[in-house]
Amino acid sequence: MPELRKDPIIGRWVIISTERGRRPSEFFSDEIEVKDGFCPLCEGNEDKTPPEVFAIRENGSPPDSPGWTLRVVSNKFPALRVEGNLNRQGEGLYDKMNGVGAHEVVIETPEHDETLTTLPIHKVMKVLTAYRERISDLNRDPRVRYVLVFKNQGAAAGASLEHSHSQIIALPVVPKRVSEEIDGAKAYYKYKDRCVFCDIIRQEIGHKARIIEENTAAIALAPFASRFPFETWILPKDHSAYFHHTEAAQFEDMASLLSDALRRIDSTLPSSPYNFMLHTAPSNKNAEEFYHWHIEIIPKLTKVAGFEWGTGFYINPTPPEEAAKYLREARPQGNRG
Amino acid sequence: MPELRKDPIIGRWVIISTERGRRPSEFFSDEIEVKDGFCPLCEGNEDKTPPEVFAIRENGSPPDSPGWTLRVVSNKFPALRVEGNLNRQGEGLYDKMNGVGAHEVVIETPEHDETLTTLPIHKVMKVLTAYRERISDLNRDPRVRYVLVFKNQGAAAGASLEHSHSQIIALPVVPKRVSEEIDGAKAYYKYKDRCVFCDIIRQEIGHKARIIEENTAAIALAPFASRFPFETWILPKDHSAYFHHTEAAQFEDMASLLSDALRRIDSTLPSSPYNFMLHTAPSNKNAEEFYHWHIEIIPKLTKVAGFEWGTGFYINPTPPEEAAKYLREARPQGNRG
Repeated sequence: MPELRKDPIIGRWVIISTERGRRPSEFFSDEIEVKDGFCPLCEGNEDKTPPEVFAIRENGSPPDSPGWTLRVVSNKFPALRVEGNLNRQGEGLYDKMNGVGAHEVVIETPEHDETLTTLPIHKVMKVLTAYRERISDLNRDPRVRYVLVFKNQGAAAGASLEHSHSQIIALPVVPKRVSEEIDGAKAYYKYKDRCVFCDIIRQEIGHKARIIEENTAAIALAPFASRFPFETWILPKDHSAYFHHTEAAQFEDMASLLSDALRRIDSTLPSSPYNFMLHTAPSNKNAEEFYHWHIEIIPKLTKVAGFEWGTGFYINPTPPEEAAKYLREARPQGNRG
Repeated sequence: MPELRKDPIIGRWVIISTERGRRPSEFFSDEIEVKDGFCPLCEGNEDKTPPEVFAIRENGSPPDSPGWTLRVVSNKFPALRVEGNLNRQGEGLYDKMNGVGAHEVVIETPEHDETLTTLPIHKVMKVLTAYRERISDLNRDPRVRYVLVFKNQGAAAGASLEHSHSQIIALPVVPKRVSEEIDGAKAYYKYKDRCVFCDIIRQEIGHKARIIEENTAAIALAPFASRFPFETWILPKDHSAYFHHTEAAQFEDMASLLSDALRRIDSTLPSSPYNFMLHTAPSNKNAEEFYHWHIEIIPKLTKVAGFEWGTGFYINPTPPEEAAKYLREARPQGNRG
């Protein structure tokens, strides 16, 4: 059973993945895995993954068989385990608990050569739909305090499988980074009676220089204090704390902007690896009034080094105004169908 | 002039390095720089670096000439500028200030083929001495709120020059990661009237499983909530908040343990890149009673990806007890002179 441990100084949790238990010699083969041309996420290889927990099958095909548009399965090497209780306990001055939670893989397409960037918008909408359904479902487990959806694209961004996929991790604690955002947004709301993200959107629309694209329901921008070159945030224009409360009607605008942002990044920085993270409010925090869900995309262009680890400070060599200009002028190419 | 910008939600500062202003095409050549076999940090090339701000010259040779054991020079491409005032100001709901501070390079040895790992202990002591002198000096500038010493070893850890060096950045704000540690240690002290780091050392000495090595003045251990495989912390056993108040007599034990830790890591994980960061108290925080300086070494073995960026949570595949066992059993090889 993996173990959750809390740093006694700053309160940061880590997952100590005891079962993976990597030895020194195992750290130097971090290649993308497609063994002998075989990919476990491709259509036809459904028996090579754990059973699906969600799928979109427009032809009514049975679970774990071919014929799907999108599948969500448990991660074969999960960072957390679904079974068991938390068993929160101390060890002297330390705190720990069992690594209970969920770790799922969203297989975004049956085609090995497609990526989220090349998928047509109606298929990107299905990916967002899968996120919404899984977040809703995982939030029903009373042990779950937070559900994170994220994507690692490319080996340098931490992907270990080539086939286009994103991941979902349900955690038994609200992670530090999320608490910080919640606390910051709450403090701003308390002082101003306004959502800080709504204020940011208003100011950016007036200022224009950091906007990448907007449509009726959503906006893509380069944040004022971008940590990374070409960092891109996508936010719904109307205030909304919980991603999984988003109505299907809004997904088309969101999917269109997400797709465009990925295409703009790919056309500006060809084939660059990236991470994206869906920031949504924790289900038990009553964050309705002050939080605002959004997607953060970070192209993996710079190395995070001693300075960043030592300070939590970032050095960004590309001003967001310049990044926004490049991305705005890039044409989102490819199939917009 | 680089600009410091504050994230309006979580209060994280970033340095927007406007002068470097990297364009999209400039991100794909992140190789270690030794152009045509020429290294600006080697002995004899003193005129290829900015003038030295500190040096150890046992033969009394003049500044910026050969004959040194160690040199500290300004970074040729500094993230922050020494000249100018901070000019703190708002921009709508955002906060920013000029990127004033210092960015220096500690050239640890005149020999291109030496590394901090291969240097004899008496030379590692000189490196610690240089850190102490520069921290003391930079803290005299009233604009400086924090001085960070760190090292990136190897291209994957963010080094851009091959010649063994560490870096010093003096910042006009206390960075978030440091504030968190200060606040956490202060809260613990308020509740228990004891230093949390002293308590950790006591518990670890009793428990033994995470200790890598100890001597009279210092201890090396794998922290309970290690973020990374083979993460190693070195702490003075006696309570001490400020690194630059350490007496020269204690440096021998510290240098010996730092050297051994690097050799143990190198023998367990040959030639692995790493970062280390010196965590010391900010000069203006009266942290004497509750903070405890230490060095954090993190071998660069795993990729930080979407999950970590989204949560501030880490997945560590090697339990610190196992890491400590490997490192304890590794022989620190090489010249111990």
